[in-house]
Amino acid sequence: MSEAASITSYSLIAADKVKGTNVYNPAGDTLGAIDDIMIDKASGRAIYAVMSFGGFLGMGEKYHPLPWAVLAYDADKGGYVVNLDKTVLEGAPNYDRDAQNAWTPDYGQKIDRYYDTPS
Amino acid sequence: MSEAASITSYSLIAADKVKGTNVYNPAGDTLGAIDDIMIDKASGRAIYAVMSFGGFLGMGEKYHPLPWAVLAYDADKGGYVVNLDKTVLEGAPNYDRDAQNAWTPDYGQKIDRYYDTPS
Repeated sequence: MSEAASITSYSLIAADKVKGTNVYNPAGDTLGAIDDIMIDKASGRAIYAVMSFGGFLGMGEKYHPLPWAVLAYDADKGGYVVNLDKTVLEGAPNYDRDAQNAWTPDYGQKIDRYYDTPS
Repeated sequence: MSEAASITSYSLIAADKVKGTNVYNPAGDTLGAIDDIMIDKASGRAIYAVMSFGGFLGMGEKYHPLPWAVLAYDADKGGYVVNLDKTVLEGAPNYDRDAQNAWTPDYGQKIDRYYDTPS
């Protein structure tokens, strides 16, 4: 997509521009950023947002997949807010930047169970 | 996202891997490929798929935004099928690769009206 064509307005964002969108806690502290979104191919629905902590919170270069339902878009902040404590995130399913991660149904269920969300 | 982490399985695909997914007609002919997906930031729903014809059908380097509802995922083909004639696509809203395209509500409505889909 050309730079011009990917100008986003109102409520839409190009999938290839999602990377880097900030994630905040309700107090407004930056927790990390979106690294990617896992989309259901058929329905086109975002199912998981993969958060990169990238050293935020002293958690190192970790990827944390969050159920999409956990994120709330905040237009003023231009990013997503999650109401999760650091301790919850520390214990959450995650993988290292250069680790294998297979998106199996089992892995999805593990995430959904941890955050107590339906898949 | 690391290469390993973006391995997709079952029904999920990483947003940054969507680009290049083929789009076919019901007869199985390649019409073009997905260039990007426009996602609603809040709901996480894909609203438009931006198709690149890239010279397919002799239509030159055009981007055609299609309402997501027009696409059907075909697991066997590993791509999307759209039941649209070339003539319909030729007359559809599109923009050149290096043209300005602002994703205003008006532009969305123009697409939705053309394909007769709700937004």
